[in-house]
Amino acid sequence: MHFDHAGIATGDADALASLYCELFSTRIAHEERFDGLRVLFLDLGGGYFELLEPVEEGTISRYLDRNGPGIHHLAVATEDIEATLARAKTMGVDLIDEEPRPGAWGHDVAFLHPKSTGGILVEFVQH
Amino acid sequence: MHFDHAGIATGDADALASLYCELFSTRIAHEERFDGLRVLFLDLGGGYFELLEPVEEGTISRYLDRNGPGIHHLAVATEDIEATLARAKTMGVDLIDEEPRPGAWGHDVAFLHPKSTGGILVEFVQH
Repeated sequence: MHFDHAGIATGDADALASLYCELFSTRIAHEERFDGLRVLFLDLGGGYFELLEPVEEGTISRYLDRNGPGIHHLAVATEDIEATLARAKTMGVDLIDEEPRPGAWGHDVAFLHPKSTGGILVEFVQH
Repeated sequence: MHFDHAGIATGDADALASLYCELFSTRIAHEERFDGLRVLFLDLGGGYFELLEPVEEGTISRYLDRNGPGIHHLAVATEDIEATLARAKTMGVDLIDEEPRPGAWGHDVAFLHPKSTGGILVEFVQH
């Protein structure tokens, strides 16, 4: 497994991408509209920043309403997401997604409940 | 520049390290006591999770009192932290540290103000 990305909730993905590309000398690796969100991945070498801007009401718009912009989740890549989820369940970790589901960029993803993981919303992702 | 680590505030670094090492099939790469904190770095391949447990009152204990455990900051590695800070300043980014200062693991670090960086506490780090 390895670090994959930090998911960042923002009200303006283009403005934040422009700032981060200059600040971190990086570039947009991928962008798409997915699940009511505009999603931009910035390539940081060894990992990505995933900028999440809601275009419809949903999880991220509610997150922004409650918390304002900021870090929403951390994602760890695995080569076998089903085995990884099964192991997490055996460990007693509370799963938000019992099964992998389609995520941004065509990847399979599954989230764990922050109450089980030190207050952090953890995503497993399989490319 | 490249992703370096996610800093995670916790009341019990050993328990969280134990959970994460099993959950992410990783290991503790470094630990030390630094600046009133117990600091554990977990090697995630391409980046680290830096677990921060206060042993004295300070920034992280106040963060935990206000927010509970969770993601405290994201760190990006640079090969020239002074030039990176100077460029950030030219861009109008508000710096918490105008000059690099000694950080954990013997690295030089400097933090940017979240109000300038999309609500995220960003750390530049030079190994």
